[in-house]
Amino acid sequence: MTDDHSHRTKTIDAGRRAILGSGAKAAALAAGAGGLLAGCGPRDEERAAGAAPASGAASASRSGGASGAAMANAAAKTHVGPGELDEYYAFFSGGQSGEMRIMGLPSMRELMRVPVFNHCSATGWGQTNESLKILTEGLTPETRKFLQTRGGTYANGDLHHPHMSFTDGTYDGRYLFMNDKANTRVARVRCDVMKCDKIIELPNQHTVHGLRVQKFPRTGYVFCNGEDRTPIPNDGTALNDLKQYQCVFTAVNGDTMKVAWQVLVDGNLDNVDGDYQGKYCFSTCYNSEEGVTIAESTKAEQDWVVVFSLKRIEEAVSKGEFKTIGGVPVLDGKKGSRFTRYIPIPNSPHGINTAPDGIHIVANGKLSPTVTVFDVRKFDDLFDDKIKPRDTVVAEPELGLGPLHTAFDGRGNAYTTLFIDSQICKWSIAKAIEKYGANKEADPIVQKLDVHYQPGHNHTSMGQTKEADGKWLLSLNKFSKDRFLNVGPLKPECDQLVDISGDRMVLVHDSPSFAEPHDATIVHRSKVNPISLWKRDDPMWEDARRQAKADGVELESASKVVRDGNKVRVYMFSVAPIFSLTDFTVKQGNEVTVYVTNRDQVEDVTHGFTIVNYGIAMEVAPQATASVTFKADRAGVYWYYCQWFCHALHMEMKGRMLVEPRRG
Amino acid sequence: MTDDHSHRTKTIDAGRRAILGSGAKAAALAAGAGGLLAGCGPRDEERAAGAAPASGAASASRSGGASGAAMANAAAKTHVGPGELDEYYAFFSGGQSGEMRIMGLPSMRELMRVPVFNHCSATGWGQTNESLKILTEGLTPETRKFLQTRGGTYANGDLHHPHMSFTDGTYDGRYLFMNDKANTRVARVRCDVMKCDKIIELPNQHTVHGLRVQKFPRTGYVFCNGEDRTPIPNDGTALNDLKQYQCVFTAVNGDTMKVAWQVLVDGNLDNVDGDYQGKYCFSTCYNSEEGVTIAESTKAEQDWVVVFSLKRIEEAVSKGEFKTIGGVPVLDGKKGSRFTRYIPIPNSPHGINTAPDGIHIVANGKLSPTVTVFDVRKFDDLFDDKIKPRDTVVAEPELGLGPLHTAFDGRGNAYTTLFIDSQICKWSIAKAIEKYGANKEADPIVQKLDVHYQPGHNHTSMGQTKEADGKWLLSLNKFSKDRFLNVGPLKPECDQLVDISGDRMVLVHDSPSFAEPHDATIVHRSKVNPISLWKRDDPMWEDARRQAKADGVELESASKVVRDGNKVRVYMFSVAPIFSLTDFTVKQGNEVTVYVTNRDQVEDVTHGFTIVNYGIAMEVAPQATASVTFKADRAGVYWYYCQWFCHALHMEMKGRMLVEPRRG
Repeated sequence: MTDDHSHRTKTIDAGRRAILGSGAKAAALAAGAGGLLAGCGPRDEERAAGAAPASGAASASRSGGASGAAMANAAAKTHVGPGELDEYYAFFSGGQSGEMRIMGLPSMRELMRVPVFNHCSATGWGQTNESLKILTEGLTPETRKFLQTRGGTYANGDLHHPHMSFTDGTYDGRYLFMNDKANTRVARVRCDVMKCDKIIELPNQHTVHGLRVQKFPRTGYVFCNGEDRTPIPNDGTALNDLKQYQCVFTAVNGDTMKVAWQVLVDGNLDNVDGDYQGKYCFSTCYNSEEGVTIAESTKAEQDWVVVFSLKRIEEAVSKGEFKTIGGVPVLDGKKGSRFTRYIPIPNSPHGINTAPDGIHIVANGKLSPTVTVFDVRKFDDLFDDKIKPRDTVVAEPELGLGPLHTAFDGRGNAYTTLFIDSQICKWSIAKAIEKYGANKEADPIVQKLDVHYQPGHNHTSMGQTKEADGKWLLSLNKFSKDRFLNVGPLKPECDQLVDISGDRMVLVHDSPSFAEPHDATIVHRSKVNPISLWKRDDPMWEDARRQAKADGVELESASKVVRDGNKVRVYMFSVAPIFSLTDFTVKQGNEVTVYVTNRDQVEDVTHGFTIVNYGIAMEVAPQATASVTFKADRAGVYWYYCQWFCHALHMEMKGRMLVEPRRG
Repeated sequence: MTDDHSHRTKTIDAGRRAILGSGAKAAALAAGAGGLLAGCGPRDEERAAGAAPASGAASASRSGGASGAAMANAAAKTHVGPGELDEYYAFFSGGQSGEMRIMGLPSMRELMRVPVFNHCSATGWGQTNESLKILTEGLTPETRKFLQTRGGTYANGDLHHPHMSFTDGTYDGRYLFMNDKANTRVARVRCDVMKCDKIIELPNQHTVHGLRVQKFPRTGYVFCNGEDRTPIPNDGTALNDLKQYQCVFTAVNGDTMKVAWQVLVDGNLDNVDGDYQGKYCFSTCYNSEEGVTIAESTKAEQDWVVVFSLKRIEEAVSKGEFKTIGGVPVLDGKKGSRFTRYIPIPNSPHGINTAPDGIHIVANGKLSPTVTVFDVRKFDDLFDDKIKPRDTVVAEPELGLGPLHTAFDGRGNAYTTLFIDSQICKWSIAKAIEKYGANKEADPIVQKLDVHYQPGHNHTSMGQTKEADGKWLLSLNKFSKDRFLNVGPLKPECDQLVDISGDRMVLVHDSPSFAEPHDATIVHRSKVNPISLWKRDDPMWEDARRQAKADGVELESASKVVRDGNKVRVYMFSVAPIFSLTDFTVKQGNEVTVYVTNRDQVEDVTHGFTIVNYGIAMEVAPQATASVTFKADRAGVYWYYCQWFCHALHMEMKGRMLVEPRRG
């Protein structure tokens, strides 16, 4: 049987032309297509094909408009010499790579990859018992069942929005939180060891896009925007009945990593941020039409910012005024609810960002050339119905085409990415308010800087805290095109570093990145204090400790093989360049668990444990224990070796697993 | 039942002490322990515990001994401004991360990650049908059976030694070849698209460590060193009978990616290189003792370089003078064979490198402070038994502790990494020969430069070809310790860039890397010419093309769902910001294959296809087709979306998979 969908295709093509050819959005979208082509040189045959390039991008010089001398000075600032340390940690989303990255800034060097939602060949993330516990224990029962035939875990993730925990309006160096848009999960990374220690799936919700954390009094909540609308429960009983589709907002308790509560909302949530008072959080919301095609979801001229009252929600939850769905408390926060307010803003807003002044909130227009500025102090009156939703707006400056995200320098300036124009617009919040009020002649725009190309998120050093220091800005650009040596059809994205310490922005460095450079958080190094050796009582290998105790084995001095029916537990330790067991013997078909404890106390002397031709590999950092369980279902001699170079005799650090064949 | 192995542990400890305390290697090994500690500051409690730090490392200043002015000048050389292109591609091993990396040099920016032996969340490598074909078709039948219960593929790999194909002694930009030590595989990456197109498992062999390619007349052969010794067949019939253990050397045909032939050898092979004449290749070989513990394998004072005569081997193969084992021709090249010669050199050599002069070959001592230099012109006489093995040696300079690898500048100088001393030693080949011959007073050593810390492989720009240009040297160091902001117990390695264009080496940049920075190849950008758009007739999606034809579908214009019993094939195309299907419906339990063809012709407009809560994600670069097959075993509404940012309306580029529940 064959379904022919060619009529649908036609509909879509027609719909697309309609979008491009009609209404107020036409200019923006046409320029959008041009924006994608701007600055690409003669290889882009389509450039001549009609779309007008955005003016800013078309006139872009590679230097971003700065003078040669200014660039040379600023470039010198980014130089971090051999052996010198960076001033900032930048925690990067790995986008669809599923990992988190730790970069050094201003050098823009990748200091570490932290596996989170992905599987990692080097560390054994997704294979070790310790990582499998983290990857599976927070899944819903439905997902656990679904994954039974898929090795028990999702192998992929789309990691967005890594953000550090706050205390009193600034980073406290405890945790980083981040989300997986692809499989609706939230993860936490411990900043003492820079490893993920918790992952939970959000029930009821379908995708989680925007994520930010509570700034005051502390984190506290992790705010998680559901994006797509689906029926609840999503079990196939309703498939195409759009009235049953729901969008969910979730607050996770950052300490327990359990869902605190959920709120049902209208539209599709996009990005989120919290205030500096601990009273509200707010999300941009597109698709107020609640359509299911691109034409339907971009039809209306207006969408919303949804404001959530934490106090009202907490009160209702404490009084039991919720439904328990999927095991968590759910409130109805759709239009008309006392828990939320819907503030109309132009169609399809994207980022939303709270300024370090603690007062102003900027929602970015995306399909509108404007950003909308709210005064958080007006939200009390809004919830008390003393003012109308739009009365909370104090400015709405027009900045350029495709405003997506805004960052701040702590000196009253805001920096907004213009996706379609391929620019950063620096503007004055005070001037924008002035223009919206009494003085129509006021010009809030300070400077526009070309970036390369199509910026999404941007970030300033400490700019999401009350300690914004106005030194550096990162522009995370979605396309690199001709900015780097050609590496084939799949090109890196381009993270650009901009010096914002002076009056003018100066572009100083292009940094390629793999997969979407989705989001980042720039944290001064004084806020972060990792350890170099694991503590032996770390909870990470609690199960191993418990099992060893039951087996009468001390992990740190173990050289023992415990046989327990078909199960075999192999305990060994490592001290460069030896494993304490030079060999061990199992029977074909045994379920084997190998525990390796790295007894080395010298920092950076990580060992590994790889079994040749068995697909087994894991990292064992100094003073850590790691374990892996597998079925010994091929007979023969299989060497195991240390794969993290550790010693002059590293090549000789190995042993043999002897697998006796199954009889007859 | 419990086996107590404490006696074995004691044996090992005793053995280790014995190694450390006796014989000619004691100094090197004791210094080795010290070397690991050098430069680590007060946190290293063990520093006071007795091991003497190596003299070079102990006196290391962070600047590597260069003057401030020299460093500033050289650092300026590494600056690649925004929008400027690097001069060299550096193809990096990803070590146990299993990927290959493309870096730009001198900026040391990571331009692209190429998944090879790993699974990749972003691109769907290990999940798409196109990648699964490459990952599985070259496996042996035994491994294919073993992996049946493991999802069909190895999820990990330990990628070493990426090397480009040659024509007439220099890089030709066709392919890169690399090996997986962990699971005994060899892979090829196409340099036009920078994607892996072939992976084969080497039968009979256990691990593949060293890999280099034939330099003349062309590649030709890919030389692959088996390292560990196991019985053949390794099916458990012999487990602990060491006499049945074999070590295997393999030559792969780089054009067909089939095994050309294998040779059985004595000892454990380590690294390999080829000549510039197309007559010989040669491997370092340790564990001539053929022991199975570290004490046994480092006992003798001497190991070997094994030289292979390509002509004699080819003649024997063409005459059928081989055994077919595991489906490939195998010759016996153990001591006394006409195919090989074993040249004694000091204990446990490691790297082996052919100089760009086409004449000299350097084997690096590891446990000996010397390197041994051979004259390739003497190998004809050696094979004709006119001279003795050691008569091929023309120099054996003492350079320092732990020589591992040597690179060349094309001006007669060699650069050897000293692992234990944490230094690069620059020395003159001509002076070393002079000293070995008539003039004992000659001093070949030109300069020693501190590196940080414990260098393994090193590389010079174009230095493995006859076009060595002597501009840059990379030192791939196994430890970073205090060189970067602290990122927890697991630290990056440290790849250092050294300017070798002048008389003195100058350290100019520290670059962190994740997992072992195993090996690299530095290729001038003029040699590499990738394309930016896939060609529609690319063989990568040959199976999709065939299936589409059978289904009467044109991939480029497809919007069609084909139902074939329990199988459903969904064909769609993408043009930013739409998929040609806004939804498709399947039944729970269907085996669904989704084919996505990216019709965009603008370079860098890659799309993705992710299905929410289904663990499905793949990359579709411009003009490519990609496909993925999965069982639709959870009912409900599942949105799919584009995860590679493509357009201002990227967030809206999505559709719905409706999975009808199984009846009853």
